[in-house]
Amino acid sequence: MTAVGWKPPPWLVWSTGFESSSSLKLGFVFSRLRNGGSAITLKSRGSLRIKALDGSRRVAVNGKVEDLNDKSTNRHASNSGKIPTRLSTVGNSRNIKWHECSVGKVDRQNLLNQKGCVIWITGLSGSGKSTVACALSQSLYQRGKLSYILDGDNVRHGLNRDLTFKAEDRAENIRRIGEVAKLFAESGVICIASLISPYRRDRDMCRALLPDGDFIEVFMDVPLHVCEARDPKGLYKLARAGKIKGFTGIDDPYEPPLNCEIVLQHKRGYGACPSEMAEVVVSYLEGKGYLQA
Amino acid sequence: MTAVGWKPPPWLVWSTGFESSSSLKLGFVFSRLRNGGSAITLKSRGSLRIKALDGSRRVAVNGKVEDLNDKSTNRHASNSGKIPTRLSTVGNSRNIKWHECSVGKVDRQNLLNQKGCVIWITGLSGSGKSTVACALSQSLYQRGKLSYILDGDNVRHGLNRDLTFKAEDRAENIRRIGEVAKLFAESGVICIASLISPYRRDRDMCRALLPDGDFIEVFMDVPLHVCEARDPKGLYKLARAGKIKGFTGIDDPYEPPLNCEIVLQHKRGYGACPSEMAEVVVSYLEGKGYLQA
Repeated sequence: MTAVGWKPPPWLVWSTGFESSSSLKLGFVFSRLRNGGSAITLKSRGSLRIKALDGSRRVAVNGKVEDLNDKSTNRHASNSGKIPTRLSTVGNSRNIKWHECSVGKVDRQNLLNQKGCVIWITGLSGSGKSTVACALSQSLYQRGKLSYILDGDNVRHGLNRDLTFKAEDRAENIRRIGEVAKLFAESGVICIASLISPYRRDRDMCRALLPDGDFIEVFMDVPLHVCEARDPKGLYKLARAGKIKGFTGIDDPYEPPLNCEIVLQHKRGYGACPSEMAEVVVSYLEGKGYLQA
Repeated sequence: MTAVGWKPPPWLVWSTGFESSSSLKLGFVFSRLRNGGSAITLKSRGSLRIKALDGSRRVAVNGKVEDLNDKSTNRHASNSGKIPTRLSTVGNSRNIKWHECSVGKVDRQNLLNQKGCVIWITGLSGSGKSTVACALSQSLYQRGKLSYILDGDNVRHGLNRDLTFKAEDRAENIRRIGEVAKLFAESGVICIASLISPYRRDRDMCRALLPDGDFIEVFMDVPLHVCEARDPKGLYKLARAGKIKGFTGIDDPYEPPLNCEIVLQHKRGYGACPSEMAEVVVSYLEGKGYLQA
């Protein structure tokens, strides 16, 4: 890194704020950036850190005066202290510590004017899970609500690309999606998980990760023969031909939910369109207060 | 499930919309719910699905007229078709298909008035990663921007609880966090990943998952002796006593970034407070256009 003469751009006005309110001076050093840009290096050249600001703990950030007496500053003080905090062992992870942040789920929910939760859409392959997930996402978007779809197949392109369709890997696939869905719900997002998830035990484990009420199980109650007639991915044909083993509904069981929140049922010869089904879920969310903070 | 006489609550007005605009009639069946509530079952009793709505594809949803000629309806049509779509093999996952949804990253970004990205904070244990992550989250929140922290330790309480601190598990820990961070960025959230991530190779793999520019690496450039003197979790003491093996900085290397976007540097005897450091990152985001859609 080489220090070069540099003037902060107009949006970097906060340094002035510090200089005028304390003896703290901030320096910037350019360093090489990918794509020919420049990295900003923050160096504190002041002789006082927190103390320097004791008299005036307010700084101008982008022209807006902000108070440094915030929780993050307090948090820093406790984190940089010498007292070791309690460590724990969770699963195979030893010596880990939970970090709480001053911006919490409630704050994020207030920002979004909605409540984070998980809509877990379960059902046979070809039952219309992804289609309803998409219609639901569209409908929520039209209401100004932020949702995100965790599609079983899509997640296998990334996070779960190391997993096969063996029994233990299918369970792990669901566990991970459940954990990620939980993170999304914590972030305030309405997370729509769309995956076969054939076993009650696995789904119930994901339910147990969330606070009461925040796991909303939606069962696509479509008979096997209808799904097989649709066969949008040609998988039933492969399974019947013995080319795919352990295929849900063919040579592996699907356990329908016993106590799910919403059933989207297929009646012989008729079917509701995805938008209608999505509206049932939206109405449920609205009724339960998830579409406001 | 038992059918009982039931009137839809006021928020469930969309059924009226369907009845008045087509011959489609919707029925509701109560079923038992967890916590004594009730599940809604949607049964379509109409004889027409899409066709019934051809003449009038607009329905009233919560008093707001909406058009059913949306992408989700079109998508349904293609998904329920008989033509098998192309399947692929990714990693160990065979016969999977990517599901595209009509609500995309750009839409979510418009909703949030920000761009999804990953702020990857790397550095030694005790270098202040979590503290800066928290201050950054706070600062973004004050600007009305949605961020979410993926803290290395926190994720080990859930998604990565099966992983140890062995070399291969540490790599897998980082890979999974990278993949989850990518999902958050896709959802439009500013994802702040805070973890030691000592090896360049692992960090670069996470960078490669994101579109150019969306992975913003922040290096907490704090000397080992400073981190060790802080020792907020008492881990250095345990490592020096040989009670923790393979501890970064003690008996396992830390590879500082060569081309990261931001360096937050510690100068001997002085230190910038977390809020100041967070502002450097915020200013970078602002300058690069991430704080608007």
